[in-house]
Amino acid sequence: VRLGEVAELLGLTLVGDGNVAVTGVAPLDAAGPGDLSFFVPGRAPEEALSATKADAVILPAGVESPLPTLVALNPLLAAARATALLRPETPPPPGVHPTAFVHPDAIVADTAHIGPHVSVGAGGRIGEGAVVRAGARIGDEAVVGDGSVVFENVVLYDRCRIGDRCRIHANTTIGADGFGYVPDETGRLFKIPQIGLVVVEDDVEIGASCTVDRAAFGVTRIGAGTKIDDQVHVGHNCDIGRHVVIAGGSGVAGSTIIRDRVMIGGHCAITDHVEIASGVMLAGQTGVNRSLTEAGVYEGPRAASRREFVAFIKAGANLEKLKKRVEALEKKE
Amino acid sequence: VRLGEVAELLGLTLVGDGNVAVTGVAPLDAAGPGDLSFFVPGRAPEEALSATKADAVILPAGVESPLPTLVALNPLLAAARATALLRPETPPPPGVHPTAFVHPDAIVADTAHIGPHVSVGAGGRIGEGAVVRAGARIGDEAVVGDGSVVFENVVLYDRCRIGDRCRIHANTTIGADGFGYVPDETGRLFKIPQIGLVVVEDDVEIGASCTVDRAAFGVTRIGAGTKIDDQVHVGHNCDIGRHVVIAGGSGVAGSTIIRDRVMIGGHCAITDHVEIASGVMLAGQTGVNRSLTEAGVYEGPRAASRREFVAFIKAGANLEKLKKRVEALEKKE
Amino acid sequence: VRLGEVAELLGLTLVGDGNVAVTGVAPLDAAGPGDLSFFVPGRAPEEALSATKADAVILPAGVESPLPTLVALNPLLAAARATALLRPETPPPPGVHPTAFVHPDAIVADTAHIGPHVSVGAGGRIGEGAVVRAGARIGDEAVVGDGSVVFENVVLYDRCRIGDRCRIHANTTIGADGFGYVPDETGRLFKIPQIGLVVVEDDVEIGASCTVDRAAFGVTRIGAGTKIDDQVHVGHNCDIGRHVVIAGGSGVAGSTIIRDRVMIGGHCAITDHVEIASGVMLAGQTGVNRSLTEAGVYEGPRAASRREFVAFIKAGANLEKLKKRVEALEKKE
Repeated sequence: VRLGEVAELLGLTLVGDGNVAVTGVAPLDAAGPGDLSFFVPGRAPEEALSATKADAVILPAGVESPLPTLVALNPLLAAARATALLRPETPPPPGVHPTAFVHPDAIVADTAHIGPHVSVGAGGRIGEGAVVRAGARIGDEAVVGDGSVVFENVVLYDRCRIGDRCRIHANTTIGADGFGYVPDETGRLFKIPQIGLVVVEDDVEIGASCTVDRAAFGVTRIGAGTKIDDQVHVGHNCDIGRHVVIAGGSGVAGSTIIRDRVMIGGHCAITDHVEIASGVMLAGQTGVNRSLTEAGVYEGPRAASRREFVAFIKAGANLEKLKKRVEALEKKE
Repeated sequence: VRLGEVAELLGLTLVGDGNVAVTGVAPLDAAGPGDLSFFVPGRAPEEALSATKADAVILPAGVESPLPTLVALNPLLAAARATALLRPETPPPPGVHPTAFVHPDAIVADTAHIGPHVSVGAGGRIGEGAVVRAGARIGDEAVVGDGSVVFENVVLYDRCRIGDRCRIHANTTIGADGFGYVPDETGRLFKIPQIGLVVVEDDVEIGASCTVDRAAFGVTRIGAGTKIDDQVHVGHNCDIGRHVVIAGGSGVAGSTIIRDRVMIGGHCAITDHVEIASGVMLAGQTGVNRSLTEAGVYEGPRAASRREFVAFIKAGANLEKLKKRVEALEKKE
Repeated sequence: VRLGEVAELLGLTLVGDGNVAVTGVAPLDAAGPGDLSFFVPGRAPEEALSATKADAVILPAGVESPLPTLVALNPLLAAARATALLRPETPPPPGVHPTAFVHPDAIVADTAHIGPHVSVGAGGRIGEGAVVRAGARIGDEAVVGDGSVVFENVVLYDRCRIGDRCRIHANTTIGADGFGYVPDETGRLFKIPQIGLVVVEDDVEIGASCTVDRAAFGVTRIGAGTKIDDQVHVGHNCDIGRHVVIAGGSGVAGSTIIRDRVMIGGHCAITDHVEIASGVMLAGQTGVNRSLTEAGVYEGPRAASRREFVAFIKAGANLEKLKKRVEALEKKE
């Protein structure tokens, strides 16, 4: 693709020779002939820009290079778009692999791909252009929306639904029973049947080895545009809003509400039956033991404000000294 | 089913019209015609009871409603039992799916269901009425007890055993090698062969994406009636007692003993070779670095009593102020 | 096998009758006739040595037993080697199971085992003596090295590579997309295409339900000899060194560098774009929010030195008392 075409397709300003051909995108230090690279101030040193072997570069306004240049307000966004343009994912061909099992009462779009050893249960529906990769299981009456990709060995339990243009990575489980028991007269745990379901809305990405549990009654929801990293757990009856970000290893316990655009760092643990307001950001490993109704950055066990938590850790490191100062004062008395 | 029959089958007192037909169970705010609902004081507001569109309701003694009522000591338990009665899980039909592979030396009960793409190794045994869903693997000489359900893509390694009436959710792994190495003369890690196994006793439920490792020698045990949430890890040679509860994302390191009825919150990390006594409850994210021999509620890293940990966090938030008070005293000297 | 042969093969000194036959290895308290046992001071009480029913024993120099004895500098290492000798893993027979699907453009060594319901994509390569167990997926152009074992339902995404003599346990995912987005002009998250790959070097073991993400650009690397427990997450573009140990439930966020021989306890959370120096050991549940450039043992959120963290926790438990002492001083003013 000629650089001029990339500029046109992405709506960027071209500076220099638009006839140079670009075939890929790479960071400054890894780029070679044929590559379009990009410079994001703060993410790479300026020297990398002068040393790069790329054939063209995406720059923010005000930064210059002798290379043919695309000027972008947001060079990282432009680079992501250029990558999607130059290195599009090739979808596997439509059709059902001969080793797959599709129940006669399931509906699979002609344009969908069903990989080896996939099974689709009775009443399951696979949308236009959807891809269900090897070993995945789509349960009875479960739905995979148009253009979604379900990676290998994902399990979608009966009646659960995935929207359009979602990506669900390998070995993730959607719709397993929520964790609900009630002690019986003898003290043994009696299972509360989990008869609800999971709805994953459009444009959601869920990483590998995640677990999103079906509701006891009703729905566990993952809102449109939300992005979830690997190894994340979402308990039954949770309501996760739109454009939420949850990093790896975090867990949200049952019936908790996460509002739109909340950002959750890695390895956070959020308790059940609470609500996290829009504008909240949780640092990694934050423990949330109550509702957080005010926007802000939180950190630490029992979620303090980040500022307070940092002060606490800092003061804590000097506790021994403080104790000695108190002892000194006591001796003087 | 008529409400009177539900009352009889569950041993509850009927107040009002026993002829009303109920077809499902739902919470007060979600219930509609045909539904039996339930009121658990503290879990739902009283207004929900008067506003519900349910046709009948389960109530604790002393609470009244114009609806036909079942009076229960424990309305949540009664609702769980009613759900199991009215909305029983329909087991898939007995038989081996044509895409499954059952080794000729395996024994599968005639009443068991073996789903698509399942494989059962040599000497494997699948009990009466057991269900092994799509893509699961039952290893050589591994055993699935009567009435147990093994969900999709679960892996049961060779020789491991699951008792009767268990539920093992999707993508869980039982019997992978424990994590044991010893440095050799050159400092490289030499693997300690893991030749033991895992025994899961009767009536255990294990969530999705869990890992229970096989013993180095001997047995890793999960005691009868124990309930484990998603994404839980149990290391090699652990001995988990009966009726233990472990919430999502927690891990128990090797050779640790968890006594009967211990309750472990989410995202807890318990070290190896320790013992947790009956009567212990761990709050979410608790770190356990030693044996806990006394009953009680624990919280925080290095497991303090919950009371102490809350006091610590509270005092910690005022550490800066305390420091300033000490400074003020010092100045006065 | 005669004990004398074991001594010879492992290079150990024999004391007593070398003609005794040994068929297995077991700990002192579990050993019976035919077993070779082992005594590691500190790991078992001395009484266990006199009470054992083993037929022979591995001892450190200076410890004696009436049983036929192998004297070893490192009895645990010797026991591990003896176990590997007496109870070798029997590899499944070479060949491709009839239910597996191997793409015609894939190359599978004649000596490799491909289990039931495995699929190997176009251009995939499976090395000599490699074992790919039931339900695993080897992606297009992905590589499994000689002698490696890929357990059930593992997913190796396209183009990712596993070296020689590795073990990858069940339900682990290697090569899922890294977690990278950039907000677009409307505030929605635009996906940064993840076009890099994962390289797992030789002699690596990775536990069950792990996730190692492919690089955005370039390579996510797991160095030779490294051992990873279950439920561990390694983010995109991480560089994990050689002979690193990572215990269960830990996570390493994107682009972080872990140097050779670092030891990471369970449930640690390490942030992105940092570097952990050789000689660092992280206690369980440590949070690492910055580079650690000095060797030592770290613990706690925001990784303090273990000594400091223990002092902090200890002093914290007495904070209330300290506050009262300050109050007492203030009253005296």
